Amino acid sequence: MLVENAEDIERATGLRLRVVRALVRDADRDRPAAPADGVLTTDFAAIRDDPSIGVVAELMGGIEPARTHVLELLAAGKPVVTANKQLVAQHGAELFAAAAEAGVQLRFEASVCAAIPVIKVLREALVVSNVHRVLGIVNGTTNFILTEMESGATFGEALAEAQRLGYAEADPTDDVSGADAAAKMAILATVAFGSRVTLADVDYQGVEEVTPLHVAAARELEMVIRLVGSATLVDERLDVRVRPAFVDRHHPLAAVEGAFNAVMLQGDAIREITLEGPGAGGIETASAVVADTVSVLGTAANGFLQNDACWRELDTLPSGALRSPFYVHLEVDDRPGVLADVAQRLAAHDVSIARLVQVPTTDGAVLHIVVHEAAESAVEGALADIAEVGSLHAPPFLVPVVSDRGVTELGWA
Amino acid sequence: MLVENAEDIERATGLRLRVVRALVRDADRDRPAAPADGVLTTDFAAIRDDPSIGVVAELMGGIEPARTHVLELLAAGKPVVTANKQLVAQHGAELFAAAAEAGVQLRFEASVCAAIPVIKVLREALVVSNVHRVLGIVNGTTNFILTEMESGATFGEALAEAQRLGYAEADPTDDVSGADAAAKMAILATVAFGSRVTLADVDYQGVEEVTPLHVAAARELEMVIRLVGSATLVDERLDVRVRPAFVDRHHPLAAVEGAFNAVMLQGDAIREITLEGPGAGGIETASAVVADTVSVLGTAANGFLQNDACWRELDTLPSGALRSPFYVHLEVDDRPGVLADVAQRLAAHDVSIARLVQVPTTDGAVLHIVVHEAAESAVEGALADIAEVGSLHAPPFLVPVVSDRGVTELGWA
Repeated sequence: MLVENAEDIERATGLRLRVVRALVRDADRDRPAAPADGVLTTDFAAIRDDPSIGVVAELMGGIEPARTHVLELLAAGKPVVTANKQLVAQHGAELFAAAAEAGVQLRFEASVCAAIPVIKVLREALVVSNVHRVLGIVNGTTNFILTEMESGATFGEALAEAQRLGYAEADPTDDVSGADAAAKMAILATVAFGSRVTLADVDYQGVEEVTPLHVAAARELEMVIRLVGSATLVDERLDVRVRPAFVDRHHPLAAVEGAFNAVMLQGDAIREITLEGPGAGGIETASAVVADTVSVLGTAANGFLQNDACWRELDTLPSGALRSPFYVHLEVDDRPGVLADVAQRLAAHDVSIARLVQVPTTDGAVLHIVVHEAAESAVEGALADIAEVGSLHAPPFLVPVVSDRGVTELGWA
Repeated sequence: MLVENAEDIERATGLRLRVVRALVRDADRDRPAAPADGVLTTDFAAIRDDPSIGVVAELMGGIEPARTHVLELLAAGKPVVTANKQLVAQHGAELFAAAAEAGVQLRFEASVCAAIPVIKVLREALVVSNVHRVLGIVNGTTNFILTEMESGATFGEALAEAQRLGYAEADPTDDVSGADAAAKMAILATVAFGSRVTLADVDYQGVEEVTPLHVAAARELEMVIRLVGSATLVDERLDVRVRPAFVDRHHPLAAVEGAFNAVMLQGDAIREITLEGPGAGGIETASAVVADTVSVLGTAANGFLQNDACWRELDTLPSGALRSPFYVHLEVDDRPGVLADVAQRLAAHDVSIARLVQVPTTDGAVLHIVVHEAAESAVEGALADIAEVGSLHAPPFLVPVVSDRGVTELGWA
């Protein structure tokens, strides 16, 4: 891309970029686009110690040796652009401190949602918007799986199709478990709120437990099921999580289909801005890396708005304290008193039912319950009490509801 | 906003902004937020000639005296930030030439879609993405009207409601006619394609002719009706237009409801990126103006990526040459041979029918026709021939269809 677009880049920026060197494991391997002689090297020092190199893009992935390389490059006075989300999410504090120490930039747009320029927008366009919430569909694999399940596929069929199309790795654990989305939400929360959030701070669940029954329930409520990352600022405390959620079909995130990603930024001055696009892919990631690269060179004189985004240390909201409406799916005995038990135990935890539908099954009943906004811990407490009664056929399924409307306006045919 | 967020701005940028002077018509009028003594002035020269003023925001609206003021400010070496879409769309060439001559920046993010940072994203994030198409819902008033009509309102009722809520002016002509959207599309096309497009180059239609019958037809096709601006690069020629369009409900633009705006950017490297948010409003516009203001000051040293976006002069595609699938709504006599006439005349212009539904009415029939991709002039030619037969009860209604899927996959219950 740097070679093919060299003229475009020069016209827009006045800068002629030249690829000086590329670190590879094996310089002799056959490559589809063969670089010029002398570009490929297996010697990292040939990059770090070459004074003619103005900026380095780190595209190795993984923590080591990427972390050590980036630290050495920054210490050598070279700005770095990285697409490495785990590196930024886990070692951001160390890396940005090293960049500040050396007085060079470290940019990371490509580490979150590929070509969707959400980091640039957060840092440079929303200087005064006081963003207090970030909602994101930031993992394309799980979004593809969930939209396939809407069309009738089981989880296993949808995952197999995602693997066939190259959306999912042979080992899809990081995607399916929510760990990939959690790393991206850590980076977004850090930039949005100016307080360091690492992967370890993110409470995440994946999509493994989502069944066609849940997908059908979402449809009855005129909602869709999505894996939603949320970063929320509540009374100067932070909550960052990833959960399957029921999303109102009128909500912008409900329109995100297939392997696409979207991030919604909510703030005082902007109300809400949503950015949607492909969240992965080689050329898309390259586009973000090139944009960061030319920006580093173009703003090297003063590094405008590219200091470390963190300027405060916010506490984390206690686990379970975040309030939301929820959907609860219970499989229960079909005998007198069960419904009363459930309603009573929810009420005992101050959890208020907005909507309840009971559907008979072959060996009992399913209760679909939507509750008004409540702390997750209160709903979980009520569910634990309900489980003690002994009438549950399966563990309860609990997901937050994302809606701009009140939950009483949701459907149920 | 500048006063309330002064600390946030200083922390993020290192710059302390101070409002030195504000040009008003009447300095003595009661104002809700009274500025400090000496800030209000009715003397433009007190701004232009004050060397302590580093950047000026033009928020007057209208062409004159805004145009003369901006030209004088630029000539005096002062960077300008403007929210004035008609000024940029009609006099961009003159203004950017003056900025280049003086070596100062002219930024205009707030002139298009308020707080949605589409200009920044186009200029700074998509340096190498070769954007070839911009699709936008860029007028909140008409989008509100069309979504109200989906809920059963007539055009008149929806417009009255928009006026009651403050979305539409007492004189809504500019919104309803498409002129407001056209100015925004001119600016977006200029930045996306690097070739000057003025308001006069944009072929626009408004929503005046949309009826509940059309809205219902869109629903039958599993589409929604939206006022869509499009800027398209076809074989190095440009087409910029605004039209009511039928949008597939799976398309990201179909999810844009109420007074919101959205812009979809399609390019080689990014596939498609959509930005959605409030496209108007005082605080939202202020947010964009402040972001531009701090960016001007932060990058004053080199003005990185803020030169005039135009670097080539592209020809305009001949009117009617742009190809698209279309929906055609015909009210006809219900007598033998009418359908054959219609089909024959479409075929004579090489317009291929993808879907046709005939519905009886009290005094004839309505034909709902979706045609495969064709040049607009071909469809218009066929419709002129059909009109000559004399069986039409009303002028035909023709709108482009926006869909990522083939039109054969559209519904009709």
